[in-house]
Amino acid sequence: LEVDMSMTSMQQPSEGETAHLIGSDKVEGTAVRRTSGDKVGSISRLMIEKRSGRVAYAVMSFGGFLGMGENYYPLPWGVLRYNSRLDAYELNLTDDQLRGAPSMSDREIDLLGEQGRDREIAAYYGPGPFGL
Amino acid sequence: LEVDMSMTSMQQPSEGETAHLIGSDKVEGTAVRRTSGDKVGSISRLMIEKRSGRVAYAVMSFGGFLGMGENYYPLPWGVLRYNSRLDAYELNLTDDQLRGAPSMSDREIDLLGEQGRDREIAAYYGPGPFGL
Repeated sequence: LEVDMSMTSMQQPSEGETAHLIGSDKVEGTAVRRTSGDKVGSISRLMIEKRSGRVAYAVMSFGGFLGMGENYYPLPWGVLRYNSRLDAYELNLTDDQLRGAPSMSDREIDLLGEQGRDREIAAYYGPGPFGL
Repeated sequence: LEVDMSMTSMQQPSEGETAHLIGSDKVEGTAVRRTSGDKVGSISRLMIEKRSGRVAYAVMSFGGFLGMGENYYPLPWGVLRYNSRLDAYELNLTDDQLRGAPSMSDREIDLLGEQGRDREIAAYYGPGPFGL
């Protein structure tokens, strides 16, 4: 796995962000790409815990390059690493990993935040394949 | 101060939210009103701490009803209480309180997240006039 760490996040804030903060409107719409530049999807919205104000998930949407309909992948915030070279969040999910990743249709979004689903997502991205 | 608590937040999630979670795109653009229904402003974006994923501020924009240019008011997340009757976040900032509240121009947004500014905002909305 090749990642040029010198290019990843925490650098040169641009419009809509500071060194420590980033605007929700800047995250929304940002692409998610593999190190190779292949597009995996893009961030459609952040899901925020009402009480704590913590971002529970960044929802990656993704339509059709595996021949399926639009699907939504809740990603833990910590998965997002901005890579300025890619102008995208860098996430090396292979096609196989994407097929196995927790996802939902637009209508299933109500399931987000339920205990079982949280555990499933944490287990998938947790100490597992992405070493988070 | 009259607040019909039966109508405030944590109820009947609608599209884009669940009982515990709310989408960033649903917060953006939502009005901020006094209990009387007077509009104070609207939420333009959330500023999120890059490392922790915590919402540092909801930025309320507000243009001109006191005769000033567009101004941005960073509000601590905990200040936002949705009131379904108002279809808005309910915040009883008087005109005088608004004049005194920490605000910034679009270009000054870089100051957000700096220690001094954080303290100023916390002090204003903290154990102070809004009893948070």
